[in-house]
Amino acid sequence: MNRVPLGQKVLKENDRIAAELRERFADHEILCLNLVSSPGAGKTSLLERTLQAFAPAQRVAVLTGDIQTDNDAVRLARFGFPTKQITTGGTCHLEARMIEKALADWRLEDIDLLLVENVGNLVCPSSYDLGEAAKIVVLSVAEGDDKPLKYPAMFFRSELLVLNKIDLLPYVPFNLANARDFARRVHPGIEIIELSCLTGEGIPQWQRWIEGRLKSRRKSLART
Amino acid sequence: MNRVPLGQKVLKENDRIAAELRERFADHEILCLNLVSSPGAGKTSLLERTLQAFAPAQRVAVLTGDIQTDNDAVRLARFGFPTKQITTGGTCHLEARMIEKALADWRLEDIDLLLVENVGNLVCPSSYDLGEAAKIVVLSVAEGDDKPLKYPAMFFRSELLVLNKIDLLPYVPFNLANARDFARRVHPGIEIIELSCLTGEGIPQWQRWIEGRLKSRRKSLART
Repeated sequence: MNRVPLGQKVLKENDRIAAELRERFADHEILCLNLVSSPGAGKTSLLERTLQAFAPAQRVAVLTGDIQTDNDAVRLARFGFPTKQITTGGTCHLEARMIEKALADWRLEDIDLLLVENVGNLVCPSSYDLGEAAKIVVLSVAEGDDKPLKYPAMFFRSELLVLNKIDLLPYVPFNLANARDFARRVHPGIEIIELSCLTGEGIPQWQRWIEGRLKSRRKSLART
Repeated sequence: MNRVPLGQKVLKENDRIAAELRERFADHEILCLNLVSSPGAGKTSLLERTLQAFAPAQRVAVLTGDIQTDNDAVRLARFGFPTKQITTGGTCHLEARMIEKALADWRLEDIDLLLVENVGNLVCPSSYDLGEAAKIVVLSVAEGDDKPLKYPAMFFRSELLVLNKIDLLPYVPFNLANARDFARRVHPGIEIIELSCLTGEGIPQWQRWIEGRLKSRRKSLART
């Protein structure tokens, strides 16, 4: 079986394109964030909350990946920022070449923040670098607190864990302390924000996190 | 890129082993059900409810797939039926050869019902036949009613949709009529059972579904 060598070849080619993208993002001072999660954890809702809070003058763009349908792009385009759907047609994750292609007709000099919503899949997208500054994993409390242990690669590779749907905590068997502990067992340095896209609780903390990343990015660019 | 031909080769090899398994299941009059879903939709909880209701004399066996950890097998072994964890070590789905290997030291003549819990992934397991009589897709209402349209392959290939966590319906933006409509748009003949593994509502209907499948299977075997 030559599956592993081919898998490595595909990943190596993906890493090559991702490295090029990362360089272009640095050249244009773009902060690129890659949102990953299970289906239905709330990536699109989180982006809705995020875009809603931005002033129209903010230079934000959105790429949203899905296997079928452009539902998410329709939901997100309402906020007036450049938004593009990447329909993978069966592929279970976004790849760097898809990002490269989607960006081909956008002027990168007009973008400060590029938000990428990956396909809903807590496994495969962890292996594909998109040139992002950080992966952000969204976990809904309805999924259970054991998920970091059961899907460790995604939590290991994410800089931030967004625990979403905390409004459901009274109704689901989910132990917050366990979830935090399991996530840190897999990835000791992971940051954690708890929020609800439905009620808005915790959203300001998420907005401050993005603002902080945008500022520290500019500072580090100014230094170079 | 020779990705597609290789993918087809892998799938063809999987189909070959799955066909052999299906034949062995028929020879031993085993009903094999393959439970698929997103992470945290409730496959393990549904199996707990299922095993709990069986008399100790019932000839049931369980295979449960996970990328890491044997948490699910520990949860399910409590009920006293033969239970085995398949740890895929990174692979995002179960494959027929994993089932074949896991069954190697079990006496198939002692099994009537083989319950297989797949890796939590609403995309990739849809492509891998395990020799099962039917795939059953579990969708938690916390995931949103749009999932059948966004992940159509899984709903198209499943005979039954179990809508789980209906106890959360008052607290989540989920339209039952839409979910049913979307599932039937993708797969007109799909059966739908609504239940809650937490409260037990709807569980008798699920048990009747399994009993029905076990009976009709024996009948069809008697005829041949």
